[in-house]
Amino acid sequence: MNLITVNKALEIVLNCAENYGIEEVDFLNSSGRILKENIFADRDFPPFDRVSMDGIAISSESFNNGQRAFKIEGILAAGSKQLTLQNTNNCLEAMTGAVLPKNTDAVIQYELLTIENGFATINLEAVKGFQNIHLKGTDKKQGDLLIKENTFISPAEIGVFATVGKTKVQVAKQPKVMVISTGNELVEVGENPAEHQIRRSNVFTLVSLLEKLKIKADTAHILDDKEILKTKIEVYLNDYDVLIFSGAVSKGKFDFIPEVLDQLGVNKLFHEVKQRPGKPFWFGKKNLENNLEAKVAERSRSIVFAFPGNPVATFVNCLKYFYPWYYKSAGLTFENTQQAILSEDFYFKPELTYFLQVKLNQDEGKLMATPVAGKGSGDLANLADADAFLELPDNRSNFIKGEIFPVIIYRQ
Amino acid sequence: MNLITVNKALEIVLNCAENYGIEEVDFLNSSGRILKENIFADRDFPPFDRVSMDGIAISSESFNNGQRAFKIEGILAAGSKQLTLQNTNNCLEAMTGAVLPKNTDAVIQYELLTIENGFATINLEAVKGFQNIHLKGTDKKQGDLLIKENTFISPAEIGVFATVGKTKVQVAKQPKVMVISTGNELVEVGENPAEHQIRRSNVFTLVSLLEKLKIKADTAHILDDKEILKTKIEVYLNDYDVLIFSGAVSKGKFDFIPEVLDQLGVNKLFHEVKQRPGKPFWFGKKNLENNLEAKVAERSRSIVFAFPGNPVATFVNCLKYFYPWYYKSAGLTFENTQQAILSEDFYFKPELTYFLQVKLNQDEGKLMATPVAGKGSGDLANLADADAFLELPDNRSNFIKGEIFPVIIYRQ
Repeated sequence: MNLITVNKALEIVLNCAENYGIEEVDFLNSSGRILKENIFADRDFPPFDRVSMDGIAISSESFNNGQRAFKIEGILAAGSKQLTLQNTNNCLEAMTGAVLPKNTDAVIQYELLTIENGFATINLEAVKGFQNIHLKGTDKKQGDLLIKENTFISPAEIGVFATVGKTKVQVAKQPKVMVISTGNELVEVGENPAEHQIRRSNVFTLVSLLEKLKIKADTAHILDDKEILKTKIEVYLNDYDVLIFSGAVSKGKFDFIPEVLDQLGVNKLFHEVKQRPGKPFWFGKKNLENNLEAKVAERSRSIVFAFPGNPVATFVNCLKYFYPWYYKSAGLTFENTQQAILSEDFYFKPELTYFLQVKLNQDEGKLMATPVAGKGSGDLANLADADAFLELPDNRSNFIKGEIFPVIIYRQ
Repeated sequence: MNLITVNKALEIVLNCAENYGIEEVDFLNSSGRILKENIFADRDFPPFDRVSMDGIAISSESFNNGQRAFKIEGILAAGSKQLTLQNTNNCLEAMTGAVLPKNTDAVIQYELLTIENGFATINLEAVKGFQNIHLKGTDKKQGDLLIKENTFISPAEIGVFATVGKTKVQVAKQPKVMVISTGNELVEVGENPAEHQIRRSNVFTLVSLLEKLKIKADTAHILDDKEILKTKIEVYLNDYDVLIFSGAVSKGKFDFIPEVLDQLGVNKLFHEVKQRPGKPFWFGKKNLENNLEAKVAERSRSIVFAFPGNPVATFVNCLKYFYPWYYKSAGLTFENTQQAILSEDFYFKPELTYFLQVKLNQDEGKLMATPVAGKGSGDLANLADADAFLELPDNRSNFIKGEIFPVIIYRQ
């Protein structure tokens, strides 16, 4: 067998990463997308010398001159304009978030005060200048880079966008994806399959996996008929940036996908990878430079991921190949460096990279991976029992408890 | 100071977990929700003796009697009804996914065949009975439990739903949540703040954090005016299962929230937790048994999470308290058991649980946590630089490189 390795396959896939441009979205809808602009501080943070405890603002000089009881001149709330302490022997009550009053340089919190008859008495030995004051610009200076382009946007970034007034943000445009099932044995989820039939499921798993990347994929089903396949796929190649197939890529007499893709001018980059499950994975691309419709849509090529129909193969291949391809396309400098520790000996003979279904658990900061009993048969229900795939290399058969391997986690 | 500990606060919060009932959603929209029914196999899996390699189906008896060349009687595709091998000295071509033909008990893959003139010759020394056949019911038997009630639904579960024909699934109903900011210093994200003002950001961080739980929260802003607060909060208490506040819970003269909630009959369960950031956290509930509007909405109580206004405090408290509260309410037997290893010495003096902002990285299967430089000042931009909070206990000041602590991860 002259299959390519998993690493080589991934390299080829990543070389086909494609820039789909940029779009602007409401900042509140940007979670899970990839940021395509640098976010800068629009002002200093804090934007003023900010009171950081509820209490009184004083001039520390008065305190250091021995004064302990301060007449309260007034009160200052967050959101009020800056006040001025008129007499530096007095004080102003000042609330967290307020602008430090002029002529003051220290804030004493209520817990350390006795307030009586309009006077605040400080129960403290010493006061430091600028205590309980969060000085202007100490966190960030106006113009500072807060978030770099090509960051994955999470709730923390949403807060930063709001803080600096970014109501709209530039994010990577998503590729337009069509997920296609084939196979005459498949019926719809709502139907009752006859004995020799099964329900469509892989397309929905794929749609759900893509949804996690905030990609809304379309779906289609095509019967195992060469002419119908050809007609429909030709349309999809023009209309979509990415086609993802599940099934019909193996050696069967009705596995028409590779042949049809070839006839439609899709350039095969590899077929069959040294892995289990997922070996018959077919990958290619079609240049559309001369295609008018594609040109109108500013689409220069279509990428085709044709995954094997085995549900576990489809699942692991989407995570192993499509996910990194998408991240790279969107500009994310992403590399899956997660590893886990095998918690028991495991034996796998074929010279293939084995994606072992494992259950994860943490033990004192170490990520332990325990194989989930299964027959590698494409049993989708097993996926629901596991959390991740441990990637066992293709060059040996014995994997020993305590060894560390790359892991693809699909459940947090 | 007589503050309660983080563990005690969490315990009180979890004791207020509330069952919000069940709703039915389309299976494709169920990802991220909590399943509220058991999912059973509606038939055996595989549902028939399933050909698992493309090749020919034979009677192994003929092979064992010395026969090597088999006349091809016909071809069998996946999705075709079961065929019968008419002459057990012949064979049928059979594709992956097809029903094993009657009178056959072994499948030989194409790779091991020579096919010429309508005969398939097997290049093999021995054939095992049922080789390359995935026998009916070996993965699951009809009636087997595939996914348990109270499971977090991920793409793997979506595939299982499709497989067993569950077009609709029962999931935990989400609580109706209102997120409220207060503070006269706040302006809208699209506005230009004056020097003494800042933009609203915490509500949006919270909305985004809740969106990760598939909760669509409403938002409101109320000025620091006791009467307005009272009027509006009274309405929200009737209309929402949960109110989340950000700000106005500390010792400031305009921190009206605790007082107003008290006046509105919300029962304080604690105020101030032995932690930093997030110490002034106020938590309570209001029983609504005698409230007509609430009764109509089948709402028996409102839960109030009043977080401090410091952005980092709001963020960590949402993860530390609201998330587990939600998971428990939805029926998930969830416990955050994640831990990480401190990668450098750290010193923190106050007798408070410290939620240290850390950057995570993996080192040979071990999760390492490196402190992110910051002033604990509520600098939201720091959140964007970190991945998680390491939870350092309140009973000591020196934390040594290599020690293991609980970790709250907010970025994958």
